[in-house]
Amino acid sequence: MSKRDLISINDLTNDEIEQVFAVADEFAADMRGFGSLCRAHIMATLFYEPSTRTRLSFESAMHRLGGNVITVANMRDSSSSKGESLADTVRVVGGNYADVLVIRHPAAGAARVAASFADVPVINAGDGGHEHPTQTLCDLYTLKKQKGHLEGLDVVLCGDLKYSRTVHSLAYALARFSANIICIPAPSFEMPDYVLEKLAGEFRCEPERFQGGEFDALVEQADAFYITPNRPHQLSLFTDAAESRAQKRRLIKNIDAVYMTRAQSERFGSCEEAAAYPRVNEAVLSSPGFQDAIVMHPLPRRDEIAYELDRDPRSMYFQQAQLGVPIRMALISVLLGQRPLKRPAAPRARVVVPGLGHLRCGNEACITRTEQGGYLPSEFEVVSRLPFRLRCAYCETVRPATFVGDRSRMKVFPAESNDVMAIAGTEITAFEDVAAYEAEGYELERTT
Amino acid sequence: MSKRDLISINDLTNDEIEQVFAVADEFAADMRGFGSLCRAHIMATLFYEPSTRTRLSFESAMHRLGGNVITVANMRDSSSSKGESLADTVRVVGGNYADVLVIRHPAAGAARVAASFADVPVINAGDGGHEHPTQTLCDLYTLKKQKGHLEGLDVVLCGDLKYSRTVHSLAYALARFSANIICIPAPSFEMPDYVLEKLAGEFRCEPERFQGGEFDALVEQADAFYITPNRPHQLSLFTDAAESRAQKRRLIKNIDAVYMTRAQSERFGSCEEAAAYPRVNEAVLSSPGFQDAIVMHPLPRRDEIAYELDRDPRSMYFQQAQLGVPIRMALISVLLGQRPLKRPAAPRARVVVPGLGHLRCGNEACITRTEQGGYLPSEFEVVSRLPFRLRCAYCETVRPATFVGDRSRMKVFPAESNDVMAIAGTEITAFEDVAAYEAEGYELERTT
Amino acid sequence: MSKRDLISINDLTNDEIEQVFAVADEFAADMRGFGSLCRAHIMATLFYEPSTRTRLSFESAMHRLGGNVITVANMRDSSSSKGESLADTVRVVGGNYADVLVIRHPAAGAARVAASFADVPVINAGDGGHEHPTQTLCDLYTLKKQKGHLEGLDVVLCGDLKYSRTVHSLAYALARFSANIICIPAPSFEMPDYVLEKLAGEFRCEPERFQGGEFDALVEQADAFYITPNRPHQLSLFTDAAESRAQKRRLIKNIDAVYMTRAQSERFGSCEEAAAYPRVNEAVLSSPGFQDAIVMHPLPRRDEIAYELDRDPRSMYFQQAQLGVPIRMALISVLLGQRPLKRPAAPRARVVVPGLGHLRCGNEACITRTEQGGYLPSEFEVVSRLPFRLRCAYCETVRPATFVGDRSRMKVFPAESNDVMAIAGTEITAFEDVAAYEAEGYELERTT
Repeated sequence: MSKRDLISINDLTNDEIEQVFAVADEFAADMRGFGSLCRAHIMATLFYEPSTRTRLSFESAMHRLGGNVITVANMRDSSSSKGESLADTVRVVGGNYADVLVIRHPAAGAARVAASFADVPVINAGDGGHEHPTQTLCDLYTLKKQKGHLEGLDVVLCGDLKYSRTVHSLAYALARFSANIICIPAPSFEMPDYVLEKLAGEFRCEPERFQGGEFDALVEQADAFYITPNRPHQLSLFTDAAESRAQKRRLIKNIDAVYMTRAQSERFGSCEEAAAYPRVNEAVLSSPGFQDAIVMHPLPRRDEIAYELDRDPRSMYFQQAQLGVPIRMALISVLLGQRPLKRPAAPRARVVVPGLGHLRCGNEACITRTEQGGYLPSEFEVVSRLPFRLRCAYCETVRPATFVGDRSRMKVFPAESNDVMAIAGTEITAFEDVAAYEAEGYELERTT
Repeated sequence: MSKRDLISINDLTNDEIEQVFAVADEFAADMRGFGSLCRAHIMATLFYEPSTRTRLSFESAMHRLGGNVITVANMRDSSSSKGESLADTVRVVGGNYADVLVIRHPAAGAARVAASFADVPVINAGDGGHEHPTQTLCDLYTLKKQKGHLEGLDVVLCGDLKYSRTVHSLAYALARFSANIICIPAPSFEMPDYVLEKLAGEFRCEPERFQGGEFDALVEQADAFYITPNRPHQLSLFTDAAESRAQKRRLIKNIDAVYMTRAQSERFGSCEEAAAYPRVNEAVLSSPGFQDAIVMHPLPRRDEIAYELDRDPRSMYFQQAQLGVPIRMALISVLLGQRPLKRPAAPRARVVVPGLGHLRCGNEACITRTEQGGYLPSEFEVVSRLPFRLRCAYCETVRPATFVGDRSRMKVFPAESNDVMAIAGTEITAFEDVAAYEAEGYELERTT
Repeated sequence: MSKRDLISINDLTNDEIEQVFAVADEFAADMRGFGSLCRAHIMATLFYEPSTRTRLSFESAMHRLGGNVITVANMRDSSSSKGESLADTVRVVGGNYADVLVIRHPAAGAARVAASFADVPVINAGDGGHEHPTQTLCDLYTLKKQKGHLEGLDVVLCGDLKYSRTVHSLAYALARFSANIICIPAPSFEMPDYVLEKLAGEFRCEPERFQGGEFDALVEQADAFYITPNRPHQLSLFTDAAESRAQKRRLIKNIDAVYMTRAQSERFGSCEEAAAYPRVNEAVLSSPGFQDAIVMHPLPRRDEIAYELDRDPRSMYFQQAQLGVPIRMALISVLLGQRPLKRPAAPRARVVVPGLGHLRCGNEACITRTEQGGYLPSEFEVVSRLPFRLRCAYCETVRPATFVGDRSRMKVFPAESNDVMAIAGTEITAFEDVAAYEAEGYELERTT
């Protein structure tokens, strides 16, 4: 049997997520009752950048299961400074040292690299701007516990929607559970286009932008997005934006949750931006539609949630952090085989395009670009043929190419050419420019 | 049942201290025999400034009780640098993460803040210049073990008596057990007036200063203080300082212990001050009155205790550190309810004056002044009416006020006025200056 | 019974090393089966310089034995910065805090100091340029597992042979097991003369230098050394270097192992030196004589072992790191008395010359020179009389003296004088210069 890792929330099916929640329920009901479950197992927490909360939550979870923990709280102080590759580190630590690895790394895609080299399960505790799937599990679990179900919730995502990997992962996960998502960004912190595209393309959502309006209590002149499951419904009858919004708004009668994210002061371009950052307080929660809204936050917060809300029963941010422990207990015991998944999904098929080592990922913070030693080739999957799009197999950033080649015929075509559709999936390759395909001996095909 | 914390040594009554010692005796007799007592419990050590000895002592204690430990050895490297408030951190960690918190913090009063926000017991492992109560417990326990009792001991406190919170806490505790204390400070490191005042005011001690004399072996021209229990005794018959000293000296025939503190080189204003720092060596211990004196030190030492004393049977500083483990085991098992106190004292009544948020604590290192986010109001207790004195509810620093108000009548009086005595305790308030009371709509009452 | 420490690989006899391996075999066969063996014991890891791999390996080992761990991952952040001596730290931590200490320190000889002050067993996890004996155990254990025996192996040591304490310790250990050692240094990284002298003098080896030749695959123009057990054999028949080499080479038909060491980039004087650093790759392993050579490395590696070898079955560097866990489990359980040695060797007799406190160790990185506080006297053993050589009792660096004295007669002789042979072993002393012996009242004896 092959090992399971958790690198992306998409490594778990919806059914598997619900199974993890069922295990977490079992643990949460008796936090001191499972102290033998993972006895004689060791978890290594390797943090290439420090994070108190996440690290302590994992370590607490492992202790509550009776397991042991070995920790590097800050790998920058350690042998990685002697120039060791990530691959070597995880091959050493993921041997006799430890039975499961928890890794945090500033480079996007680092956890995927760790998983592919380690012999033991790897859990991604945050890899740069890519994912933080246990946070997402914890967010979903909080919603499940509070709302009783995950299907079709109405959730406001608010604040920094640009840099927060937490909010991106949550948006994808909510989309999988057919949620209606309303994005209320702080000015200059809008949800990036690639996230909206991914929501539309991969998760069959319908994002629609509206200027100003209903959410002025949260932030003035909000540049809001409604993201709704893309299914035949009455919205298709309307073409006028105001009518469409009104209609959508009617669908979303009661907000189930407001998910705030932290204002990172170093991101603010000006004091005006800082002042314009949305804030949740009692006034917001008194607005129409917010009566049943729970308030969530991945923490740490600054002032985007008023301290006055700490005693409000709808405030769930501390509860959310608490639930991280049973969730991580559940995940660890699943991956260590102590609570095996029923009907586990086949591992996600990764159709990596061979021979693309000469193309670089477009994301400068991708592990394939930050990692030294030359051992880690670029790897891409083809996301779509027209337009031609490649996705980095590690950080999942999507990039175009200029020429697409057919390896069996040593021919290339302009990426926008219809001929691209005809290349066999196993023979496809791609190039940045003329020099690149010529260097490999390819010729341009001047058809169509 | 409400949780118990240990923030100040005064959170425990003398009887409770003796109960903790009895539990520590039980553990010390079989250091490997209690490895199941706190099984399935987790202690979090949150150190906002590093301290190897204290942290390792707590962690060793928890392990010897069979419990687990999660650690942040240096919070400066962690999410607190993301601007998280102390209150938020302890609410998260003191939930499912951990069952008891041990906190070290550079700001005075920080541990009290942690205790008031966390749902689990909090142990103060040193909060700035305020307290370090487990060190004090350990000091008292060493004295008890070596001398057989705590009542009426004769103890020399020596060295840096100005900045050492350890020595202040110990002085208060010794006073509670009716000790005779002789203070032999290094030049420029005298015991601060507020400590002497507190010893006199709250602990009914009688401090008396003498210049030069008996303790030249320790430090030349010692500016010594004798602090004796304030009870009717023959001293009152003498008015002449020399006679009084001689009499007191006669009462203190044999020094039970010399408690040295560390010279912090960065505190020295000059090389002369460094050279004049008192030092204990074989010669001192051969002086009259010192034959039975044990030598104590909170460690780390520098050269204030000569290495030649390490083999002297009266040297107790390493023993003192060793006893820290059973003491902390006892404390942890008491707070976790595994060795509940008999006849536990009612929690110390804290009569906090409402509406004093506009007054600031006078101690710049107080947590109410260093903590960001505006969630932590100033809180004060009234120590005395004439002179009017407020004590910060967190760092316990005492401060005056200029005007005292009556909230029921919206009137203020000069703080030194006799009218202050007549204000009902629940209605009292205070102001720094005219602008402050006027801003709140109070008027000056021109009586008396 | 006195405690056992592991400071140098020479603290264990060959028979004891084999016993440790037998215990390690027992553990390696069932890595999760010994979780009760060291229950209720605590290991403290005190790292005065960080080292992820070594620390995690020790901590994993202790956890797999059911013991607990307290850790200082970086003592520079801790109370040692308050100026505490190493002796005081280990006396505190090696009391009730912990039952065994693991120490890493930048100063040579530091672990020996720790062992002499702590009441509990001390394990050296690397002390400056001195030793790293658990790495050596792990290296030998890997050779034993792969080759079936340790006696008479043919081992190539390659790369930085100058600064690597790992390689020096391994060379001594291999010599004890009658190995043939071939040294292939990187240019400017030759094995130091004192190591060659020690191999010849203490381990009865015969080092012989050859320029260029057989090992050009590894490094061009290798300045190789053959180090062979010094026993009557056919080599003595040859006097010509080429013949001798050919003969030796014939003896060493098949290389059993290539032990590579890391290129520390900061050591390179020039880019040429970096480029000339030896590298092992598939081509090297295809050369004659290397078919059965396993590839070893203490890790972390940089590019001195090509990533292409990672899948070669002869690559043992990750396996080597894995074996560190059962080896350290074995060592810990031996030192804690859970797997006591049979026929334990008497502790190595250390004949320390008294009264040499005025001589300083010649090694500036020796703990006797870096440690503050004046509590740690220089101590030396006499290695040889003619030439007169003293060895530092801590870092084991050998130094000469100018004058040798007879304490019974208060006379000194020039160190090269034959009279030195006649001084009684208990009366011998030594001096740096005339002023030194005159200061002590000695007179020069002008005989012979």
